[in-house]
Order: sequence, then C-alpha cells, then structure tokens
Amino acid sequence: MNREQLTTLLTALADGTTDVSAALDALASWPGEELGYAHVDTQRAARTGHPEVIFGQGKSPAQIVGILEVLHRAGQDGLVTRVDEAKAHEVCARMDGLEPAVEWVPDARILRRLHAPREAEATGSIAVVCAGTSDLPVAEEAAVVAEFMGNKVSRFWDVGVAGIHRVIGHAEQLRSTRVIIVVAGMEGALASVVAGLVDKPVIAVPTSVGYGASFGGVAALLAMLNSCAAGVSVVNIDNGFGAAMQASLINKGA
Amino acid sequence: MNREQLTTLLTALADGTTDVSAALDALASWPGEELGYAHVDTQRAARTGHPEVIFGQGKSPAQIVGILEVLHRAGQDGLVTRVDEAKAHEVCARMDGLEPAVEWVPDARILRRLHAPREAEATGSIAVVCAGTSDLPVAEEAAVVAEFMGNKVSRFWDVGVAGIHRVIGHAEQLRSTRVIIVVAGMEGALASVVAGLVDKPVIAVPTSVGYGASFGGVAALLAMLNSCAAGVSVVNIDNGFGAAMQASLINKGA
Amino acid sequence: MNREQLTTLLTALADGTTDVSAALDALASWPGEELGYAHVDTQRAARTGHPEVIFGQGKSPAQIVGILEVLHRAGQDGLVTRVDEAKAHEVCARMDGLEPAVEWVPDARILRRLHAPREAEATGSIAVVCAGTSDLPVAEEAAVVAEFMGNKVSRFWDVGVAGIHRVIGHAEQLRSTRVIIVVAGMEGALASVVAGLVDKPVIAVPTSVGYGASFGGVAALLAMLNSCAAGVSVVNIDNGFGAAMQASLINKGA
Amino acid sequence: MNREQLTTLLTALADGTTDVSAALDALASWPGEELGYAHVDTQRAARTGHPEVIFGQGKSPAQIVGILEVLHRAGQDGLVTRVDEAKAHEVCARMDGLEPAVEWVPDARILRRLHAPREAEATGSIAVVCAGTSDLPVAEEAAVVAEFMGNKVSRFWDVGVAGIHRVIGHAEQLRSTRVIIVVAGMEGALASVVAGLVDKPVIAVPTSVGYGASFGGVAALLAMLNSCAAGVSVVNIDNGFGAAMQASLINKGA
Amino acid sequence: MNREQLTTLLTALADGTTDVSAALDALASWPGEELGYAHVDTQRAARTGHPEVIFGQGKSPAQIVGILEVLHRAGQDGLVTRVDEAKAHEVCARMDGLEPAVEWVPDARILRRLHAPREAEATGSIAVVCAGTSDLPVAEEAAVVAEFMGNKVSRFWDVGVAGIHRVIGHAEQLRSTRVIIVVAGMEGALASVVAGLVDKPVIAVPTSVGYGASFGGVAALLAMLNSCAAGVSVVNIDNGFGAAMQASLINKGA
Amino acid sequence: MNREQLTTLLTALADGTTDVSAALDALASWPGEELGYAHVDTQRAARTGHPEVIFGQGKSPAQIVGILEVLHRAGQDGLVTRVDEAKAHEVCARMDGLEPAVEWVPDARILRRLHAPREAEATGSIAVVCAGTSDLPVAEEAAVVAEFMGNKVSRFWDVGVAGIHRVIGHAEQLRSTRVIIVVAGMEGALASVVAGLVDKPVIAVPTSVGYGASFGGVAALLAMLNSCAAGVSVVNIDNGFGAAMQASLINKGA
Amino acid sequence: MNREQLTTLLTALADGTTDVSAALDALASWPGEELGYAHVDTQRAARTGHPEVIFGQGKSPAQIVGILEVLHRAGQDGLVTRVDEAKAHEVCARMDGLEPAVEWVPDARILRRLHAPREAEATGSIAVVCAGTSDLPVAEEAAVVAEFMGNKVSRFWDVGVAGIHRVIGHAEQLRSTRVIIVVAGMEGALASVVAGLVDKPVIAVPTSVGYGASFGGVAALLAMLNSCAAGVSVVNIDNGFGAAMQASLINKGA
Amino acid sequence: MNREQLTTLLTALADGTTDVSAALDALASWPGEELGYAHVDTQRAARTGHPEVIFGQGKSPAQIVGILEVLHRAGQDGLVTRVDEAKAHEVCARMDGLEPAVEWVPDARILRRLHAPREAEATGSIAVVCAGTSDLPVAEEAAVVAEFMGNKVSRFWDVGVAGIHRVIGHAEQLRSTRVIIVVAGMEGALASVVAGLVDKPVIAVPTSVGYGASFGGVAALLAMLNSCAAGVSVVNIDNGFGAAMQASLINKGA
Repeated sequence: MNREQLTTLLTALADGTTDVSAALDALASWPGEELGYAHVDTQRAARTGHPEVIFGQGKSPAQIVGILEVLHRAGQDGLVTRVDEAKAHEVCARMDGLEPAVEWVPDARILRRLHAPREAEATGSIAVVCAGTSDLPVAEEAAVVAEFMGNKVSRFWDVGVAGIHRVIGHAEQLRSTRVIIVVAGMEGALASVVAGLVDKPVIAVPTSVGYGASFGGVAALLAMLNSCAAGVSVVNIDNGFGAAMQASLINKGA
Repeated sequence: MNREQLTTLLTALADGTTDVSAALDALASWPGEELGYAHVDTQRAARTGHPEVIFGQGKSPAQIVGILEVLHRAGQDGLVTRVDEAKAHEVCARMDGLEPAVEWVPDARILRRLHAPREAEATGSIAVVCAGTSDLPVAEEAAVVAEFMGNKVSRFWDVGVAGIHRVIGHAEQLRSTRVIIVVAGMEGALASVVAGLVDKPVIAVPTSVGYGASFGGVAALLAMLNSCAAGVSVVNIDNGFGAAMQASLINKGA
Repeated sequence: MNREQLTTLLTALADGTTDVSAALDALASWPGEELGYAHVDTQRAARTGHPEVIFGQGKSPAQIVGILEVLHRAGQDGLVTRVDEAKAHEVCARMDGLEPAVEWVPDARILRRLHAPREAEATGSIAVVCAGTSDLPVAEEAAVVAEFMGNKVSRFWDVGVAGIHRVIGHAEQLRSTRVIIVVAGMEGALASVVAGLVDKPVIAVPTSVGYGASFGGVAALLAMLNSCAAGVSVVNIDNGFGAAMQASLINKGA
Repeated sequence: MNREQLTTLLTALADGTTDVSAALDALASWPGEELGYAHVDTQRAARTGHPEVIFGQGKSPAQIVGILEVLHRAGQDGLVTRVDEAKAHEVCARMDGLEPAVEWVPDARILRRLHAPREAEATGSIAVVCAGTSDLPVAEEAAVVAEFMGNKVSRFWDVGVAGIHRVIGHAEQLRSTRVIIVVAGMEGALASVVAGLVDKPVIAVPTSVGYGASFGGVAALLAMLNSCAAGVSVVNIDNGFGAAMQASLINKGA
Repeated sequence: MNREQLTTLLTALADGTTDVSAALDALASWPGEELGYAHVDTQRAARTGHPEVIFGQGKSPAQIVGILEVLHRAGQDGLVTRVDEAKAHEVCARMDGLEPAVEWVPDARILRRLHAPREAEATGSIAVVCAGTSDLPVAEEAAVVAEFMGNKVSRFWDVGVAGIHRVIGHAEQLRSTRVIIVVAGMEGALASVVAGLVDKPVIAVPTSVGYGASFGGVAALLAMLNSCAAGVSVVNIDNGFGAAMQASLINKGA
Repeated sequence: MNREQLTTLLTALADGTTDVSAALDALASWPGEELGYAHVDTQRAARTGHPEVIFGQGKSPAQIVGILEVLHRAGQDGLVTRVDEAKAHEVCARMDGLEPAVEWVPDARILRRLHAPREAEATGSIAVVCAGTSDLPVAEEAAVVAEFMGNKVSRFWDVGVAGIHRVIGHAEQLRSTRVIIVVAGMEGALASVVAGLVDKPVIAVPTSVGYGASFGGVAALLAMLNSCAAGVSVVNIDNGFGAAMQASLINKGA
Repeated sequence: MNREQLTTLLTALADGTTDVSAALDALASWPGEELGYAHVDTQRAARTGHPEVIFGQGKSPAQIVGILEVLHRAGQDGLVTRVDEAKAHEVCARMDGLEPAVEWVPDARILRRLHAPREAEATGSIAVVCAGTSDLPVAEEAAVVAEFMGNKVSRFWDVGVAGIHRVIGHAEQLRSTRVIIVVAGMEGALASVVAGLVDKPVIAVPTSVGYGASFGGVAALLAMLNSCAAGVSVVNIDNGFGAAMQASLINKGA
Repeated sequence: MNREQLTTLLTALADGTTDVSAALDALASWPGEELGYAHVDTQRAARTGHPEVIFGQGKSPAQIVGILEVLHRAGQDGLVTRVDEAKAHEVCARMDGLEPAVEWVPDARILRRLHAPREAEATGSIAVVCAGTSDLPVAEEAAVVAEFMGNKVSRFWDVGVAGIHRVIGHAEQLRSTRVIIVVAGMEGALASVVAGLVDKPVIAVPTSVGYGASFGGVAALLAMLNSCAAGVSVVNIDNGFGAAMQASLINKGA
C-alpha cells in the first residue's frame, strides 16, 4: 500500500464509507504476495525508488522461478544476483518458453528478465572502475545492476595502483560522470587515489580477491573505510549490487 | 596547479615561451605550501570540489594555528575537526585578535574560521538523522561540516529504533531531502530502517557509542555494512566529517 | 538418579538397609547408559525439565541410530538436529521397519522419532519470527524443537526490516504470545525492532546468512548483543535449537 | 500514544469529530517530550511493559537531571545505570531538595528516584548468581534493576566453578525460582553448570572481569554462547541491566 | 650428535686425534638424515626425551613412507598423526609386506609402526577426559600418543558439564593419576570443573567441535586460557598430540 | 568439608547419630567463610593441593585486608597477586602492627603474609626463564608464587632468542630441573627454542610486552600455542601465577 | 611509456613537431596492451626494475594463455604463480607447440615461459631458508621467482627451531649471502633466530601451515612482525613471490 | 665471544693450552654484561652488523642509565628509542655532567649518546617517505636510527595519496636512493603507490594514526601486507626503528 492508497483508506474512514475495524484489517494485510518461503515486496519501487532485486545465493532454482513469476504478475522486471552457472542453467531450463525470456549474464553472475530493454532514465552517468582482472565479476555485477536501474555506465577495467599512470590517464573521463564506483581487492588503495583526483562521490567496493592477510576482503574493506581522501563511502565486501543501488539513487537524484 | 594552469604551461612550452627543463621544474614544484610538519594542499578545492578540512586530532595548537594561517593567506576558510575543549581554547587564545576570528563549535568539536558566513550553494538539502543522545557529537560534526561545504541541513535527533514510531513519524520529511546521513551506535539498525522507508541515498555513520561487544563501534559498522536495505553505504566509525563530505558532493552534483 | 532416588538412597542408609560403601558405589555409578562413544543422559528430563536432544552434526548414522535406540529403551522420544539429507536417508534406511518410525523434517534438518504425537502442554504460545527466506532452516529448527517440547508455535516468515511495515503489521499478534524468537542474519536489526514493539521477552537467533563482512553471522550476533531495545537475549549463531529450549522453559514456567 | 489512544483517534476520525489532516498531524507528533539532546519516550511502559531506564554512561549530570525531571513530570519513577561516583554526587547535589529524592546505590552504580517504594508485582522470583567478587557490580546492577521492575530477587554471590560444590549446594534454591541470571567473567563456565542443574531459563551475563586473553569479556561471552547446556541465552558483556529486563518480562509473564 | 658424542669430539680435539678444521666440519654436519623434502631428526629422543612423531597432515603418502623408512633404519618406532582414511590406506598399501607392519588406528587418525609392543615405562598414569562424543578423535589421539610414549592411560569419555554429576562421579579416580588431559569443545568449561576437583596438573585441549561463535575452537581455547581454577595449561586447538607429549614428560619426570 | 569429613557425616547417618534432614543441611552449608563480597574457600588446599591465592586486581584494599584476616583465622598463609604499589602501601598501612606482618614484593607485584618462612617441600626444582627485561614482573610473579607453594626456583633472566647463544649456554642447567616456565612477550619464540633443547615439560607464559601487532600479548600467545616443539603448554597472557601453580603440581607430583 | 619516451614527447612539443592536443592524447593512451579482462603492463620492467609476473590464482587457463601471448609479443619472458596442477596441464595443452615452450614447475606451483635460460645477473646470492616440509611450496615459489629475476639462490630446507642446531649449523653459509628469505609456518620463530645469527637483511614469509590457533598463518605473521631481532621485515602469508621480488631488488642494488 | 675468539678457544684446546672442562666453562659464560634486570649484548655488533639499540618503553630511567653506562664501558655509542619527554628529562638529569653527553631528539622520541658524531659509512642513501603530519614521530624515529647506523637519509614529508601529485613529483629523487622506507597510517596506500613508481626495495611502516576501523594501525598493516605492487615488505606498526635497521643492512650490503 503506497501513500496514496493510505490516504484513500483514511479518507474512506472519514467519509464513513469504511469503518474502524475494516481500517485495522487493511493495515494488517499490508501489500505483498505471500509465497510461503518469501513475502515478495511488490511495492518496494513505489516506496524506495527502485524495484526489488533478488539475492540468488542460498535460494533454490525453484524459489527463484517462483519469485520471478510473482514479479512478472506484478508487471515488474526481475533481476537475480549471485547466481552461479549451474543454478542459472537450471532456472533457464525451468523457465524455457516463458515470456519474457530469462537471460544469463555470466560475467556478472546475474539472471535478468526484462519486459522491454532498459533505457537510461538519468542524464548523468556512473563510472565503474576496477583494479584488477580478478575483481571483474564484482565490477560487472555493479555495472549490470546500474544499467538495470536505468543509468548510463562507463567501465574502466584493470587500472590498479601498481601502475598509477593507468588511473591518472582516465582522470578527465572520471570527472565527467556523476558518481564513481571503485572496485578493488588486496590493499584497496585505488579508492583513495581516485577520490583524490576527482570532485565526485566515490562508492568503494572491497572485493574478496587476495589471500593470506587479505582475510577475504577485510584488508581492502578497512583500507577503504580509512581512506585519507574525503568523499569515499564503502559497501560490503563483493557487494557490487549495493554500490550500484546507491549510485543509481545518487545519479537519479541529480 | 589546476588544469587551466597546466594547460597554460603546456601551451607556453608549445609556444617556445618556456623550455623542457623549466616545464619539468614546474611539474616538480607542484602547488601547496610547505610548513615543515605539513604540506598544505591549497589547490584541493579546484581538484576535488571541496576545500581541505584539517583533522585536528594529534596536531598541536601551534600546528593548527600555522595551517589556518596558510589557508588564510590562500584566501580560504578553515575548518578543523576533532578538537577537544582544551586544545580549542589554546588555539583561540593564540589567534586572539586575528581576523577573521576563529570560532569554537563545542557540540561538533569543531574550530571554524570564516571570511564570510557560508551560504547554501546547493538547492537540495541533507538530512542528518541521529539514533541517540550519545551519538550527537558525531551527528553535529556531520551537520556543521555539511553546512561549511555550502549545504542546507535538516537535523533529526534521538529517533532510535527501540521506538520505531519516532523515525516513521519523520519519513515524509526525510523523503524530501536529497541525501540522508544516519548516525547510530550500538546495533546500528537505524540505517536499515531509514533506507527501507525512503528513496534517497543513505550514508551510514557507525559511532563508538556502546560497550562490551560493541567493540568501539564495530558492531554498528558491521550491521551497516550488512544492511538488508539497498542504497546504504558506510564511512568509518565516528566519521561524521567523511559522511558530510560525500553527502555534499552528492547534493551539489544534483 | 533423580532427587527422589537420592532421598531413597540416603533413607536406606539411615535405615541401615544399605551401608556407606554401597552408598558411595551408588553415587559413583550415576545413571545413564554407556555406549562407548556416548554416555546417554536418560535422566536429563527429570533434572532440567526437557529431554535430551541429539546434536546430529559430526555424528555418524550408526551413532545416531544407537542413541535413538537407547532413548527408545528408556521410553523417551528422540529428536536429532543438524542432520543433512544424505545422513537422514541413511539413518531412515538403517531403522526401516523399527517402531516407532523415524521421520525426516527437511525444512528443519531434523530427525524425529515419537512414541505418540506431541501435544501442546503449555497454555501460552511461542512466536517464531524470521527475517528472510534464507533464514528459514534455522527458524524451522526452532519451531519444530519448540513443538517437540510441547509448545504451541506461531510462525511469522519473511518480515525483515527493509520493509518495516511487514513486522509492524504483525505487532498485535506478537503481543499475544508469551515469548518471541527472532531469527535474522545480515545486520540482525529485526530483533531490536520487534523488542521495541512488544512487552514480551525476545530471544534473538543470529544466522550465518550473508557474505563478506557478515563474517558467518558475527555481524548479526553483535548487533543483537548490542540491541538498544531492552528485553533481548541472544543464542549462538544458527542455534534455533537453543532458542527453542529456552523459549519452552519460559513458556512452561508461565 | 498507546493503542487505546490510537483507537480513540481513529474513532474520532470515523465519527467526523476530527479530519484526515488532523489525524496525520496526530500521528506525526507521536508522544514523548523533546529535550533537544534527548527525546524521552514517556509511553514506553505502555508499549513494551517496562518504563524507560536511562543509560548514564556518556551523559552529563545536567542531562541526567533533565531527563529525571521529564520522567517526574510524566509521573514516572527514574532509574539511571552506569553512573560512577563523581557523576552520582554531582547529580545528587543538583537535585538537592527536590522531591522525590534521588538515591545513589553504589554497589550497583545506579541512581534511583522513586515516588514510592517498589513492591514486587510478580509472584515468582528471579535468582541472580554471581561467580566472583569482581563480578559484583554487574550482578548488583541486575538485581537492583529487577527489583525496580517489581520482582523479588534472590542473590547468590561468589559461587564460581573452581569450587563446584558451592553452586551445587544451592541447586535446590535455584530450582525454586522462575528465571536465573548468571553473572560470570573469565571463562564463564558457571552458566553451563547452572543450566545443567536446573529446569529454569538461564540468562547469562558475561563480565569484563579478567585480563589477557579474556579480551574484556569476550572469552566469557563466547563460552556462554557455546554452552553445551540447553536453556541458556546471553546478553552483552557487563549488561546486568539487560538481563534484568528480560528476566522481569519472563517472571511477569508467568 | 648427543652430548656424549660431543664430549668425545672435544676430547679427540684435546687429544690431538682430530684437528680444528675437522671439528668445525663435524659441528656443521650435525646429525639427521636428509631426505630432500625433510631432514629427519633421528637424535631427538636423546635430546628431548621423546622420539620424533610425524605430523601427517599436508604430507603425501610417499613422503610418509620415506620418513617411516628412515626412522626404521635408525632403529626407531614410527608414529604419524592426522592421517585421514584415504591416506592411511595408501600408506599401508605402499608398505605392504614390510616389517614391522604399519598399523592404522582409525579412532585416533594415527599410523603406528612398532618394532615391539610398547610397554608403560612410567609408574604413574595419565587420565584423558573427554567432554563429548564429537571430541573423541582428539581424545584418542592424545591417548594413543601417550601410550606410544610409554605411559599407562585411563580414558573417561562423554563426561561434559551439562550433566555435572558425570565428572564428579569420577573425581576419585582422577585424583589417583599423575596428570590429567581434558579434551573439550564448545564452551570448554570441563577443564575448570576438573581442575577445581583435583590436585593434579590439568592440560586442557580445546577442540574445534561446535559451530557459529565457537569459531573453530576459539571459544573453548579462550575459556581454557581464562580458567578460574589454578593448575590448568592449554595446548593448541585439536592438539591431542601436544597434550600427550607434555603429559608424558610430566609423568616420566615423576 | 574434605573427604574425611564427608565420610564422617555419612557414617554418622548410617549410625543413626544424625538424620537425613541434618545431612542435607550439612551438605548445603558447605565450608568456607562468607564475607559478603567473597566466599573464602578455606578448604581448597585439602581439595586441590594448593592454598587459595588472592587475585588482587579489582579488589579494594579493604577487601584484601578482610580476606587476609579470614585466611589467618583459618591458620593459612596469604598471597595476593597483581597489587600495584599504591594499593600495596594502603594494605600495609591498614595492617600495620598485625601479626604476622604483610610483606610487599615489588618486583613481583605481590603481597605476602607468612606465619613462618616457606621451605621447599619438593625435591626437584622449577626453572623460570625470562626473555627480556620488560617481562620481569611476570617472571617474578611466577617465581615468587612457586616459592610460596614450596618449590625451589632457578631464575634465568634476559635470555631472548635475538642472541640465541644466551639460552643455549644455559641448556645444561635447564635440563637438571623438573619443569621449566618460559616467560616471553613479542614473538614468544623462546618457548619453542627451550623446548627443543630439553626433555622437560615447558609451561609458556606469553606477556603483554610489545606494541602494535603484538596486540597486548596475542602474538606471543599464538606463537606459543603453535610451537613446533612438543612438550609446550600455555597459560593466559601475563599469568605468571597460573604457570607457577601448574609447575608446582608437576614438581610435587614427582 | 618510459622516461625517455616522455622526454621525447615533451621535446617534440617544444619543437613544434607535435601540439598540445596530441600531447594530451599521448599521455591518456599510456602504454600497455588492453585484453578486455586485463591491461598488461608491458613497460613495468623499465619502470620498476622487474618484469610483470602473473598471479595465476583466480585466472582461467584461457586468460593465462592470453597474457603469456601478450608478453611474448612484447619480447618478454612469462612467469605465472599459484597455478595448481589441473590448471597447469590445461595451459600447457592449449599452448602445445608454441615457441618458446611453457614449462610447469610443480614444487613451486609455477608456469614459466623463457625465451632463453635465465642467468644470474647479480653477483651476490639470496638464501631461502625453510622451516618444515609443509612450507616447501612457498619456499620453492620464492626460489624459482628469484632465479627468474636473475639471482643466484641457495636453498636451506627443513631447519626449524625445534632442533635449533640445524639452523646454527648453517650460520656461516647464511652470512655469505646478501639477503635471506625465511619461510616458516606455525609459530614462525625461525625468522627471529636467523636474524639474531647474521648481519644480513631477513625477509620473513609466514606460511599458512598449521591448524587451530595458527589461523591460517596469522600466528606466524604476528610472530614475525614482532620479532625481537632487528633487521626483519615481513610479507603476506604464503607470499613467496613477494619476498623474492624484494630480495631481488636488494641483491641487484648491491 | 665472536668467531675469532671461538677459533682461539678451539685452537687452545687443540694445542693443549686449555682443557675440555675450561672450554665448556668458556662456552657457558658467553659474553655480555649482566645487570640483574638486563643482559647487555655488547657483542651484537660483531655478530649481526649493528650495535644494540635500547627499546626505552617500559624501562625505568634508572635502567636506561645503567644500560647506557654498560655500553659506554664497552666503548659503544648508545641509542634509546620510545622515550617520552618526562622520562627523557629524568635520564638527562641523572646523567648530567657525564661524558659523552646524552642528547634528547624530541621529534623522534630518541635519546642518543655518541662518543663522536656519526658519519655516513655507506655510499648509497635511504629515503624516508611520510604520508601525513601525524606519522612524523615514526618517520623521524626511522630517520634518526638510520643516521645512527651510518647512513645518509633523505626525508620526504607529508606526501599522502589524497594528493597523488605530491609523491609523483618526488619519483625521480626516490629512484636515486638504494632503499625506501614508507611511513603511513590510515589506509596505508602510499606504500603501493611508491613501489609502483620505483625500482627500489620498499620497507613499509604502518602507523597507529587513525581512529575507528583503523584499529590502531591494523588497517594500514593489512593494506601494506596486501600491496599489489611487488617489492614491498612490512614491519610492525609504528616500528620506525625496525625499518631503519633493515634499510641500513640493505644499504650497507650494497
């Protein structure tokens, strides 16, 4: 139930076209479709400005299919992140022949089901900057989600700080975007370097790339949280999705 | 040296009005004034969109005075964060009679030296939401820095999740801002709740408020990094300054 | 040996129907059946108010069968938690044809062997509230164990804080129970929100659902330990069983 | 605003004695008195079953006095935890002559302001069991808060596991209570031992007593979370207050 | 080279039957057989009182065979710990027909190759106390290694603190040994309880048994390090071998 | 109540000279004197082989005096560890003129009150080996406690591994003791080196000496737990007392 | 683009043979070949003194082949670390018949593709000292990389501190090298012992060898960072490559 | 005893001018002067190439004076690190009038006592690069110790990565040194950036500068250990001394 519906309800109550008991019921049966294993929040877009994206890890293919169908019935596009190859194939097989078709984007580990191609709604663009080859799946997750949310995306791949000239060479292009997502593992220094070069908000995504004392991305996470350059905020390790969601809100708010 | 100056230099070299050796020297003596204990980056505003703010913790009163004077000579306002009361008084005493006067903002633990009152440059506003009374110094640091950067700021104090109605009661006002800073210690749940209510980017600031298993703010930091609500990014524990800087970039980019 | 048996022993000693040496022996051969790999505590129910539940993880199918048979000889129902599908099938195969039959509850990862259907002994009820789809196995473990202990259980699935209206919509129902178990991973904020809405004890179960800086449930655990809402206590990560045991003691004590 | 008031409001709206706009205002101005530095939640008792208790750490004497006065105006008793001796004396001095008098309970580090002596409302009792002398301030905080909430409290001091007979000697008395709070630092083993002896819910409070690898109470916290005895839940390190709140809800629900 | 050999060398030098250069060489080519992948320390028994035991984890079957052969050539028995079933079978297959035969002890995950049955050399005995069924592999490792070192061993299995009577029932027997090894996972409280009951040194072995906040044995490790009972020392998580080695030194020194 | 007293009680019950009710009472009022803030365990010596030693940290001078007086009334010597200079002086002042006199041992931070000089009861000796000057307070605590327990002690000071010859030069002397306590901070390598040189049990005491990544002794603690030399066990950081207690049990058991 | 090329560019600009716009372009298109998934830094040798070595973990066989081909086109040798057996075989299969041949070094988990045999360029040598058999893969990685960089390497295998004579026996040889790499897991004490024996820089490599409280190499890492012997620096856990790179820079700078 | 003295001893034994017993004694009384609280290693220079430097933290002024006097009697200069101002003044007061005079270097927190001014022995130089003003004490400690060891030192202060041009502007000068020490707190990114610019070994010193999630320097430490640039090794947090010692060995070995 969005705010308009709520106003309608209260007005009906004021008008006497409904009564207190019914109003209490209406508030109890708040919207969303119940699937048993999930309560799909079909009104999230109205409330928070972006459709619900499904976190695929830990969900079975059958559950994913079920949720995509609910979204379809609500007239919404579907996006499922963190889907490995085997699970993707099983979902695609189960949905074979259904319209619109579900599509597997392997570089981003994403399943996508669109009623029509997404077009960029915002006028500005989002840069996604990636430190190393191994960080690419996270960077692609960010880029594909940002595009799904209606943003133009520029990709800057393999520009880590061990060769500082690589990122400096792109400084001008970076300055022309509205918000920059920096994806880096290991020591995560790229976020500080980029933020020192530009006058745009930087959303840093630490990745779990590394070994030993990287502690699954903790080293990069801490480095990014302690950035000496102002204008950096951080999302969870490997959370390309979350960075894209915030970048989209920033870009669309512009 | 900003980009225009760099273009001038290269043009001079192309015109023959300077030579390679001089160009190399010019690039080596990159801008900024050398103080011995600090290299003040007086061109940061041109490069990154915001003036240099001084981190006061660990600097002596004499060093703070020195840096404020350099900024003054460069025609820039000065802001010093993390200044406790004793240090603030000593700085004020040492700068007594100098113009413009240095001002101590105790709630935010900030020293401020303005050539003229700051006016809001951006059209949108930044909300600063604070969970509890003990989180106020961090929230005020964020608010005062954001105002210094030329933003309108709305403050929402003491709206923690133990009484969920408090924050829900402000949802409409929060939705009317461009970006929201949420400051919370303990379990840090407020960031998720706010982000679930609005369609604006949320910058979460964990605070060191708490005891025992809060581990100096780590509990709140982790909760915020793991927010189940999309659109949340996080800065370092107690880093009201950093949140304000990013919020300002977002608001001004709008 | 329960307290009555102990009184009998001491009385016999006082009566001269037994002697000191025999009394010492009796105290040394404290009850329980020895299996070599396990000392089954068949008197636990008398002592602590609830039958022994077997922790299945790390035990072989043969060991589980052996323990279930000892419990059966002592006239007790058996419940085995943390049994994955393969192990469950092997146990069921080994016990094929034995009475009472062993039953596999897959959603809760539990094996159950009942001499008769369990009936609710307590008059109040226990609510189990679950934040997300991925938290369900832990929530079901809690619910099935609580039912085994003789409690009525109400389930509230997929009511996470990203859509705060979902849990608020259930507030009235939650207030009508005697004790509430809240199961949540990621940032674990649901426990604080529920405890702020009701006047009932809340037992929080952090789950290992999440990735990166969730550190296998540590983020949720810390958030729950630092809850700003009074009336929350916490059990180990993924410990649906433990939450159910305490909830049962609370509900039965009522 | 409690549920009755909410019903009144909705009824007024249905009756036409108020209108939608006024109803929205009423919902926006949710109850509680605004102090600038704190939003005192004077309706918490109605909502969650227990009055608001003030966490004194990090609050100034002036702020504590202000909050106690707000509570007094709302006709409520006041309790402030984590108040060290110096702060307690300053609060007492500032409130000298005011009625009812504020009282300092040094063993529990608590300030108490009662309109009338508290009487036990619940019929059952709460046991507070304390492992060692150094754990006493936390145990007393739990006991005094529980009494403030209207419970009978039995204290069992200095019964650590290094002399296991001490706690076994009290087993019968412990079994006669409704809920048991176990306060222990160092290895925190007492919680498991007590829970193995009784059929009552045990709320374990780890304390920061210890040194070296106790890590400020983390060792006890982890031990308690991993208790092999069912029926144990845990609150934050040194959180005697939280344990008392939950124990009170359990005892009153009985 | 043991001390006698060293004395011989120095005497030879003093006698002129060797010269300085040869003495330097002798000291450089210190004893032990070089295998390329390992330098087998065949004189360790002479130096430290116990033969070298091979840590099997991370070594290939071929390497294990090679080391057992070197030990055999030096006239020594061989013991290899941390050998899983597959590796054990491959080693046994490769050494099929060799004398003495290699023997696989599955409960202890140990390979043993003895020239003659080990007999207890020490007059006292070592108790191995084990909290739960899942801790058995570590406890058996301790027991088998202690027997290999020439000690009498008494086993006390499944006597965890959730039923405190079980360990109390064995107190008298425990007091009759010279040293006690306590093996426990989860909260590790058993070490404190045993040490409070006896006047013998207790060597505590935390195990990785548990889940969630047991952190692979860290909870038990910390609990044991913080034992409030004097007379407890601790070895690494799952290190039954190390506990047995120290217990053997203690028992033999008696 | 020691075992003889328990036998007497049970015999009295068997003889009819006491009854069941009285026997239950006797078991409930287990020995020890109650001080309000502490339950002094005056029978610990009978039960565990060593008198109770008081942990002074966190106890007030008045509490320490009270406990020393209880011990005195029970005819026992007193030893209080972790007493800083100021607290020691206050205790000495309060007990001025009482017999026997309390004595302050500053190097060990220990207060000692002896009815007669302690004599070595055991025939073997305990070596205390200390890596660096800063580790001395912990090493002295170990040495003084061991002497209090009736052991001969040899001290080996400042023999860290940075000059490996220092400890090797003492190898022969170390081999002539029954048990060796190794006290070291920083990287804690001394324990491994000593254990590789001798055939005696080594009890390792990590100290909090160090900075940065020593994490208050954690680096040394972990190193000692992971010693590649067999025969090493570990006590808590800075726990010279605990090491001495276990060494004493080992030495006396010999 | 190396410095000479940069000088050429600036000179061309000064000479008028190029213009400002072209110079800006040249700086933007900084060297390196773009592969889509990687930006191969073919000028790294010129800039940092050593060719780019490929980190094989997380890269697919196809990506490794692609990068080796780019290096080949740039006339450079290729070295790929962290390649397990399966991946090595697939790369070799894909490159079958290509010249120069790719070679698999299993002990070091390295793939090597040389245009000609590497010869030692530096006059000094690098010692690689390895504590135990399980540490060998890391030590071999260090040795093979150092040889690839043009250094003479001496290997000292299985000289752990449990038999301190082993490393002391090699002290003279160690003193004759220019820099020493010490590879050790478990307690990592070998680095301190070696650094105390020699007057050469020691680069310590902690390995993940160990279990339980070794925490995947953290124990060794901390021990090495806290070495009481001066002259020790540390690289990441298992980072034989990094140690070799620094050792090579040191040896060549000599 | 250095190697020459050892050769003399063995030769004397071979010559019959000494006997075995005396030789054993000589080896037992290895050199160094015993102070009770410290065993001063006056031959360390001969053995490891650098004189013993005293770690002043945790030592009393009297102990520092004592050690400086021992060094003086051995004809050695003295250097004491980590001496705060109060302790420095007390040491200076106690040594007033003694020759050579002790000198306090406040920026480096070092006491220095030289028989003659130190001159650079090595031909190359060491660069010390410092990220921020707050890191200066650690950087100065490194610089002063390196000069004490006989090295030329170049200082590069306040060149953090937030303004990347600052460090790039010094690249040429950095390339002309033999070894570079990089001192940085917060995210520690400077080490990676410098190592990517030069072909010299980089020794990284993380500092404890920062707050919140810097965890006292852990963030910088982890970042440096995970540097994506080859040629970086790391010392303990704030360990300017250790970095200088290794840099000196590298520079002198050149």
